[in-house]
Amino acid sequence: VARCARENGTGLEEAARTARHAFYARTAHESRIAHVVLGHQADDQVETLLFRLLRGAGSRGLGSIAPRSTRGGNDFTYTLLRPLLGVWREEILGFLSARQLSFLHDASNTDLRFTRNRIRHVLLPELEKAVSRPVRESLWRTAEVLRAEDEFLASLENDAVREEWLCVKSLRALHLALQRRVVARWLRARGVPDVGFELVERVLELIRTVRIAKVNLPGAAHAIRRRGRIAWIPGNAPAHPG
Amino acid sequence: VARCARENGTGLEEAARTARHAFYARTAHESRIAHVVLGHQADDQVETLLFRLLRGAGSRGLGSIAPRSTRGGNDFTYTLLRPLLGVWREEILGFLSARQLSFLHDASNTDLRFTRNRIRHVLLPELEKAVSRPVRESLWRTAEVLRAEDEFLASLENDAVREEWLCVKSLRALHLALQRRVVARWLRARGVPDVGFELVERVLELIRTVRIAKVNLPGAAHAIRRRGRIAWIPGNAPAHPG
Repeated sequence: VARCARENGTGLEEAARTARHAFYARTAHESRIAHVVLGHQADDQVETLLFRLLRGAGSRGLGSIAPRSTRGGNDFTYTLLRPLLGVWREEILGFLSARQLSFLHDASNTDLRFTRNRIRHVLLPELEKAVSRPVRESLWRTAEVLRAEDEFLASLENDAVREEWLCVKSLRALHLALQRRVVARWLRARGVPDVGFELVERVLELIRTVRIAKVNLPGAAHAIRRRGRIAWIPGNAPAHPG
Repeated sequence: VARCARENGTGLEEAARTARHAFYARTAHESRIAHVVLGHQADDQVETLLFRLLRGAGSRGLGSIAPRSTRGGNDFTYTLLRPLLGVWREEILGFLSARQLSFLHDASNTDLRFTRNRIRHVLLPELEKAVSRPVRESLWRTAEVLRAEDEFLASLENDAVREEWLCVKSLRALHLALQRRVVARWLRARGVPDVGFELVERVLELIRTVRIAKVNLPGAAHAIRRRGRIAWIPGNAPAHPG
């Protein structure tokens, strides 16, 4: 994991996540497993919401962890299930201790070098102190509301974007909220890494003003407006390094 | 303001907000003013996002402060404009000091008894420390994305709810995200105070299971399912005290 993180220039946490998911996919495929059940808890949901919020995730990320998500490619899919997302860690520990069951403790969970652990052990208690009330339940509810809304909005994106290029007229007819989602999805489908708010807004300038007809994108690619369409012009360098 | 807060059982901050808005409405009405321009800044937007998040606001509250909103009743409306929502306090102070302009400083802005000030002076610096990077810009972008999505989702609610009662079949046909918004709006329109996640979910049980046909609401009112409709049965006590 440490080597992967160095090679891909990502953080340790991100590399560990990638490695875990690669393991689920490989194991599911090899053993023909249709469902992988994970032990994420309500606390994980709340910490993920804060983690993503502080990284400036749009609503797509804020919905946090889905109780059910389907992965895989054309020939093989499997479903990740997280039945414990509505149960608090404390409740689970209480259940285990009442039945004198033992469990594995991952020592890395207390290492404050990791952002997630600082959120868990430092930030959440600070937040509760600042507003003088418990905040975990509030944050959990917010994550749940945003998750459903994100899912609904994503279903509307599907109707709006199917093309290699974007139609200026159709895009203009959409609400700003959907314009942003459609452009972000289009950029991701073209392989643009880390599609963020600023980049999406820059591409949207193409439909807002006639003065701009070309927008630079990462990897020397660009988006141009021509004959009522927004087209993708690939750069010389691959947009995905490696 | 202190007296209003005591009488209505709200906090000082909430009472001050109500008093400010009553003043805008009265002045706009008396002087036939169509636009009221307010000085909210990008920092206010970020603080509002955190404030509402910690109070468990759904996405309706998380969108934070709107750059433009119309208020008033049937005979008179006025528009609140907030042109500085994209400008940071630091930029404004820089602008003022470069031109040697003076400004009013509200002493209550440094009083740490107020949640908003604790968010500004304590929590935001803590958050930046926890993730080792600036978070204000990220939070501002998130507020902007959520505001547009909330506005869009609210426009869909309008199509879905117009009745005194709710149609079970129509409600079932909606995505969970819209079901929640429609029920919340319906409850608010019936005068239910503080419509929150739990209450909305309880009313939704009426369309999820046949085993439940009646849900208790605040103020001794209740919602019942009868002949394919969800109807509102008022309580003896008024739902709105005072």
